This record gives sequence, structure tokens and C-alpha cells, in this order.
Amino acid sequence: MSVQDVIEGHPRPIAVDRNVLLRCIDDCFECAGTCTSCADADLGEPDVAEMVRCIRLCLDCADLCEATGRIVTRQTEPDLGLVAATLEACLRACRVCAEECDRHAAHHKHCRVCAEVCRRCEASCADLVAAFRLAPVGIG
Amino acid sequence: MSVQDVIEGHPRPIAVDRNVLLRCIDDCFECAGTCTSCADADLGEPDVAEMVRCIRLCLDCADLCEATGRIVTRQTEPDLGLVAATLEACLRACRVCAEECDRHAAHHKHCRVCAEVCRRCEASCADLVAAFRLAPVGIG
Amino acid sequence: MSVQDVIEGHPRPIAVDRNVLLRCIDDCFECAGTCTSCADADLGEPDVAEMVRCIRLCLDCADLCEATGRIVTRQTEPDLGLVAATLEACLRACRVCAEECDRHAAHHKHCRVCAEVCRRCEASCADLVAAFRLAPVGIG
Amino acid sequence: MSVQDVIEGHPRPIAVDRNVLLRCIDDCFECAGTCTSCADADLGEPDVAEMVRCIRLCLDCADLCEATGRIVTRQTEPDLGLVAATLEACLRACRVCAEECDRHAAHHKHCRVCAEVCRRCEASCADLVAAFRLAPVGIG
Repeated sequence: MSVQDVIEGHPRPIAVDRNVLLRCIDDCFECAGTCTSCADADLGEPDVAEMVRCIRLCLDCADLCEATGRIVTRQTEPDLGLVAATLEACLRACRVCAEECDRHAAHHKHCRVCAEVCRRCEASCADLVAAFRLAPVGIG
Repeated sequence: MSVQDVIEGHPRPIAVDRNVLLRCIDDCFECAGTCTSCADADLGEPDVAEMVRCIRLCLDCADLCEATGRIVTRQTEPDLGLVAATLEACLRACRVCAEECDRHAAHHKHCRVCAEVCRRCEASCADLVAAFRLAPVGIG
Repeated sequence: MSVQDVIEGHPRPIAVDRNVLLRCIDDCFECAGTCTSCADADLGEPDVAEMVRCIRLCLDCADLCEATGRIVTRQTEPDLGLVAATLEACLRACRVCAEECDRHAAHHKHCRVCAEVCRRCEASCADLVAAFRLAPVGIG
Repeated sequence: MSVQDVIEGHPRPIAVDRNVLLRCIDDCFECAGTCTSCADADLGEPDVAEMVRCIRLCLDCADLCEATGRIVTRQTEPDLGLVAATLEACLRACRVCAEECDRHAAHHKHCRVCAEVCRRCEASCADLVAAFRLAPVGIG
């Protein structure tokens, strides 16, 4: 992803393990797009009435992943407590969205894909929270 | 605000004190717009180099308030734990943004206004978290 | 709205009629929130299968109104051609969303409210495009 | 990208050349992330006062690419006129952002990367507009 190339040219020091950071950025934006697409596929299904909770949680997850992706991307003057609280909200959204998508995975391929992407993003957010705790500065 | 009129016609029951909910929705969207505007005004100042941290925190706060505004607006099939974690992240963003804006309030009117709006939004988010704890369903 | 107070303290000159600008900012953010709420109310209706097109267009309109609200809020170094093209996309989204909501206005109050808000936002975007054409700088 | 896998499982027919669509979705989300990162890197530069226009246009481009990425991702009940107008606004944002980033490419690697990504996204949006014109349904 080209965000990686931008961050390589960033003038400020990166406060945290670079690989963990880049994976989280990538997974947040990927999950935002996937949840947007899954909500839309749910909406186009003949059994849309069964998919209402899935649509709602995909919309929430897309909104949080997008905001989180932007916030963790920014390396200039971060507030680590704010970043950590955002990651906690995001990983919770990913978890409940994955659980709901799993319930429809047998009959909807898009839910199966979305559940996998949400779980990967949940793990990447958890890894980044842990990495901030280990950073020299830590979380205030 | 017209979101109030939409929610009055909403088919699902509202799980929480309606006034607390509507104030939080309103304050989140107001704060998102105000922080967007304050970041932009900072950017146009002759002393932009002194405003770097303020710009960054205003951008974070705008992104979180917008996501939070959307998530608390939705009344269909909410996950209360997700909603509460989002409100916690949002109120933290409002607090640090208000603290930074306060540092520039004496010489920049836009920072003075933005700090006030952030503090109001922080309080509304805290009130909504508390209201969910009192609701019959509670937070999972 | 407090964005008005921020813009009053903005260090750069406003290139366009201030009242037209402020009304457009206000209506874009209002319409973004209203469309988010209407999509969610549609999703909670027993006749959700009839509301699929309405949900989709409300989601599109919310996304465009939010991006447009942010872009027209920014007064530092605008590209007027970009601003005008954004307003054209936004007013088109408002128009098609209002038309779809009108089809459900008799049986869903939230669609009646949303159609009104969309039409007001469409008009405000059109007024701002016209105001930029009359501005000393004009649109490149 | 996993959006591709979701769209392969989408219940509705895709109205347009699938490769052109998927490339545009991918490039919009990539450009949104890259512009977010470039604006932040600009903000961290010692010569931030020279980067003001670049920051502003990167913020606009990120907002439009994100809204456009979401709108072109949705395949259920699209309004093709709305989609086309959105793509026109997005490609204009990409063009002016690329032009500004090019001015700083010699001394800032992040601007060089961002200019390339913006030009690729501009081309993908233009290709998708052209593909909709060739589609059986066309643009209303």
C-alpha cells in the first residue's frame, strides 16, 4: 500500500513498531471498504429482512474503521490515549460485526469474507494497542 | 435539528432517555463541523507552525465525532457495548482537543469557540454513556 | 451553529457571500445527519424490502453531504473548480434522494422529513454554485 | 483486495465492466489513505507554512475519495447520474491535488508518492465514467 511509502518519507519519528502500525492502517481501510460492500450486498439479498442487524453493524464498523484508519495513519503530534481509546472502540466493532457475519456465512459468501476481514482487523488493532503499551512513551 | 423529527417517526423503540440521546447526536455533528472549521482556520493563520498540534487534534476529533454522531443516530439493532466504547473514544478526543484549543484561546477566537463546543460534546457523550448504564437493557 | 462563530474568526478572507456560504454548510451537515437517520429508520421498518432503494440513496447522500460540508467549510486556499464540482455532485444526490423519499412520504414520516431536508440542501448547494460564479475570482 | 471477493458474492448484477469498477474502488480507497497520510506528513515538516495549500487539497481529496469509494462500491440500486457526478468531482480533486503535490515532489518524498497515487485514481475515475457511458443502461 502506498501509505507505507508516504510514512517512509514522514518527517517525524514513528513512536511504535512500524510493521504493527502499517498492518493496522492497512487492515482498518480494508475493513472499512469490505463492511461497506457487505452492507450493500446484504441490502440486495432477497432475504434482506433477515440481514437488518448485519447491515447495521457493518455500517457502524465501516464508520469506525475509517475514522480509526485516519487517526492511526497520522504520525504528527499524536495523543496516545486518544489513539488507544479509538483502537478499543474499533476492535469491539470488528468483533461484534464478525460474530453477526458468521451467523450468515453458510448462505452468503460476502458475510464469510467480511467476518474474516473483521477478525483480522480486530487482531491488528489489539496488536497496535499492545505495541503502544511497550513504546518508550507509553499511553498517558 | 431535523434528526429529531426523523427519530420521532422511527419504527423501533428508543432504548434510552430521548433528550440525552438527541443532545448527544446534535453535539457530535456540531463538534465535527466546528473542529473541521477550526483546523482550517489554524491552517490559514500566520503562526501555523505553532498550531500543528491543534490542527492534528481537531482532525482526529472531527473524524471521531462524525463516526460517533452516525453510530448514536442509528436506533435499529444497536450493540450497546460498541456504542459505549465509541462514546468513550469520542469524549476523550473532545477533551484533549479542548485542552489544546484552550492554549490558543487568547489569541485565536476560533480556538476559543472550538474549545467550548468540544467540552459540551464531551459532556453530552458522558451523559449518554451514563444513560445507557441506567437503561433497562444496560451495556453488555 | 458554531461553525459560523469559527468562520467569523477566520484569518483568511471569505471569497463569497457569507450568508449563502453559511446556509450551505449548515444544510449539508443537517442533511448528512438526516439521511443517516432516515436510512436507519427505513432499515427498522417491517416493509424494509420496499425501502432498499431509499436506504441506498440515503447512504450515498449522507456520504456526499458530509464530504461537501467539510469541503465548503474550509476557507484556506480553496480550489473553486473542485468546490463547484463537489457541490454539483451533492445537489444531484440530494435531488434523487428527495425524489425517492417522496415516494414513501405518505406512510413514513421520516421519509417526509428527509425529502424536505434534501430539497433544502439541494437549493443551498445550487445557490452557492451561483454565488461562486458571481464572485470576483469566479470558478476556474 | 477483499472488496473484490465480496462483490463476487453480490446478489445483484454488476452494471459495468468488472475490472474497471474494481480498479476504481481500490484506487479511491488507496488515494483517500495516501492523501490523509500526505496531509499529516506535510503538517510535520519544518516548512509547514509552505505546505498549507497542499494540506488543504489533500484533506479535500481524502474526503472526496472516501465518499466516492463508498458510492462506487455499492451495487444495489445505484443512480448512475449521481455516480457519474461523484466521479467527476473526485477526478477533479485528484487532479488539483496531484498538481500541487508535484510542486513539492523534489524535496518531499511523500508528495511524490501522493501525486502518483492521485493521478492513478484520476485515471481510474475517468475510466469508470467512460465505462458507464458504454453500459447497456447508460447514464440518465
